[in-house]
Amino acid sequence: MFEKIMNNVKIQKPLVHCITNSVTMNDCANAILAVHGSPIMADEIKEVEDITSICQALVINIGTLNERTVEAMIKAGQKANALNHPVILDPVGAGASSFRSETTFRLLNKIQFSVIRGNISEIKTVYQGIGTTKGVDADINDIVNEENLDETIDFARELSQRTGAIIAITGAIDIIADANHATIIRNGCPNMSRITGTGCMLSAILGAYVAVNQDSMFDTVSCAVALMGYSGELAQQKVQQQDAGTGSLRVYLIDALSTMTAEKLNGGIKIEER
Amino acid sequence: MFEKIMNNVKIQKPLVHCITNSVTMNDCANAILAVHGSPIMADEIKEVEDITSICQALVINIGTLNERTVEAMIKAGQKANALNHPVILDPVGAGASSFRSETTFRLLNKIQFSVIRGNISEIKTVYQGIGTTKGVDADINDIVNEENLDETIDFARELSQRTGAIIAITGAIDIIADANHATIIRNGCPNMSRITGTGCMLSAILGAYVAVNQDSMFDTVSCAVALMGYSGELAQQKVQQQDAGTGSLRVYLIDALSTMTAEKLNGGIKIEER
Amino acid sequence: MFEKIMNNVKIQKPLVHCITNSVTMNDCANAILAVHGSPIMADEIKEVEDITSICQALVINIGTLNERTVEAMIKAGQKANALNHPVILDPVGAGASSFRSETTFRLLNKIQFSVIRGNISEIKTVYQGIGTTKGVDADINDIVNEENLDETIDFARELSQRTGAIIAITGAIDIIADANHATIIRNGCPNMSRITGTGCMLSAILGAYVAVNQDSMFDTVSCAVALMGYSGELAQQKVQQQDAGTGSLRVYLIDALSTMTAEKLNGGIKIEER
Repeated sequence: MFEKIMNNVKIQKPLVHCITNSVTMNDCANAILAVHGSPIMADEIKEVEDITSICQALVINIGTLNERTVEAMIKAGQKANALNHPVILDPVGAGASSFRSETTFRLLNKIQFSVIRGNISEIKTVYQGIGTTKGVDADINDIVNEENLDETIDFARELSQRTGAIIAITGAIDIIADANHATIIRNGCPNMSRITGTGCMLSAILGAYVAVNQDSMFDTVSCAVALMGYSGELAQQKVQQQDAGTGSLRVYLIDALSTMTAEKLNGGIKIEER
Repeated sequence: MFEKIMNNVKIQKPLVHCITNSVTMNDCANAILAVHGSPIMADEIKEVEDITSICQALVINIGTLNERTVEAMIKAGQKANALNHPVILDPVGAGASSFRSETTFRLLNKIQFSVIRGNISEIKTVYQGIGTTKGVDADINDIVNEENLDETIDFARELSQRTGAIIAITGAIDIIADANHATIIRNGCPNMSRITGTGCMLSAILGAYVAVNQDSMFDTVSCAVALMGYSGELAQQKVQQQDAGTGSLRVYLIDALSTMTAEKLNGGIKIEER
Repeated sequence: MFEKIMNNVKIQKPLVHCITNSVTMNDCANAILAVHGSPIMADEIKEVEDITSICQALVINIGTLNERTVEAMIKAGQKANALNHPVILDPVGAGASSFRSETTFRLLNKIQFSVIRGNISEIKTVYQGIGTTKGVDADINDIVNEENLDETIDFARELSQRTGAIIAITGAIDIIADANHATIIRNGCPNMSRITGTGCMLSAILGAYVAVNQDSMFDTVSCAVALMGYSGELAQQKVQQQDAGTGSLRVYLIDALSTMTAEKLNGGIKIEER
């Protein structure tokens, strides 16, 4: 089902502008290259408008934000909006410090995002920043499980309606929602949380995927989320066969991303409409 | 002997705040995750107090320091001290520039460290910054060998007394000392110096280890030093079996860290009380 | 033919000061270590003169430049010039933004480079910054092929004459030129462009290589370019044998760099004088 989406990336090799964190920057660049995109990392305020103009999507990741780079994020985001380029937000650690939460709110206020991807805690912080007066319902727990799944999907739908962005909440169960649709994906493996950057890499790949699939944005986000999850599974299988560890998992994850085909992905995806 | 120490990390999964260098930041994050800790890298002065407050240890590594991050280090370190969180110092390249040496002295002056880990040259520079008027004895040579070992242990003991921190001098022979004890560890392999970040990763792991083992700090530092050294040996064995090189060594080192058990480590450790 | 050049690096283990981008900084450090050099990454203006003074070469890479680091580049470059240390320029993304292009021109104006390495588009931008009034000839196309090869070699020769630097244009066909000589190298493989940092790593290695081979600079640049290309080929062979992907390619590339011998390289190099 994802053949056209994946082919568009492979053939058009979209240029993706990333303003991202310094921890996983190299992983994000290699992940974008693995899926046949082309990454440019640039966060100097004097050049971000130029750089975003020659790209087809912008990914903003606040993982190691600082005062200098936050201004660059806003400038780049507004330029990308003006050019109708899709903009992806990865609010890494939103909620962990006032500065991160406030920066997240500022970004949401000043930039129209196409996709917002985070874990459930980060997405709950995003929710607080978009004008709700009551905060997040206490019963949306931090870990998505079968019990609170329907509730969390409703929450994601509502957040999508408020932000105009597709919401991707990733974890053991991934939820993708817009105002009208929701899918859940049950790919991936627990060990993916024992390497840094799997979330960041997914956000980076989302940049490449939505850049060239703007007419089917919702399915494209689902495709990219499934691609990362299933690649993680294949990588973990190889790790287990070889009695290896998390160093190898990281290498095999990029291997799987770089050799994935629509046929393979369609064979491995565990997706469900809701 | 290290079962309880390792289990505490595995079960409690401590959050470690790292203000570290941009060269090996990704390696440090993956090393902490490999040993079942959870890393947060944050160096913006506006958020370091918040971040350090939600963590259980702070690691300060000056490898790519700049004026902005030095202020963040001091602010975070003082907050961690106020909260009684252990703080680890890795004075990377101390002595290589006036700015690094002076920053090291400022940090020592303003922050109480629990552990200081470096190579012998870095630790000699640390020594110069703590109020000695005579500089370092000329006969403490740059490379620790059987000849100068006793002397270097005495030096480490004295430095520990002056700083109140456990001193870990790592190299071909590792020395761990406080005012009253000293151990030497002879694990590791020469090729570990042909990949970047083995020292930085050890300092990062020390953060995770001491965070949850504060009642047995000295043994915990020895355990973490042995863990890194023996993981390097296992990685090098695999490299040799496969006729591989330093790229694989780096991967297998993380593999070994992530799959180490107390049983394996106790079987491989070459430790000696002094 | 490259035995002496490679041995000089292996024995003298030159210290290389890198002011480089945060995306591939770790790769550059590991690449320098793989070829038996010793990297120091430092971009704080307060210490770059000290750091460059204790090193034997300086590598300036503008991949994630910002206002702060550009000033550090200039200061370090001028100090290295004063000390007669070779300085390598990697003008990453020159032409992609006004800020990058103008920074490239400033660097060329203020620093004497020994080697300038980039892809053809970057090198064309360099050309524009050295006082030509007519811009780059339209018929020097962006991709070097058999058709425009002679023309591109002439262009590289002219640029070398103007800048006083050896020019290395890398891509499917690599061109090395000074005012009087030119060689082309046909090693490497297309997949090298699907991992980030192969160009950056080559520039970093060039630092280590020219540092200790200043009496045979031209051959040394050819040797380093061939070393990277042939290492990429060997890595790709291993990837294909194992049905692996670009994650493994990156690991095996460092493996190949770290285990290369002059004998192996002489057996694999595809070099041609022009």
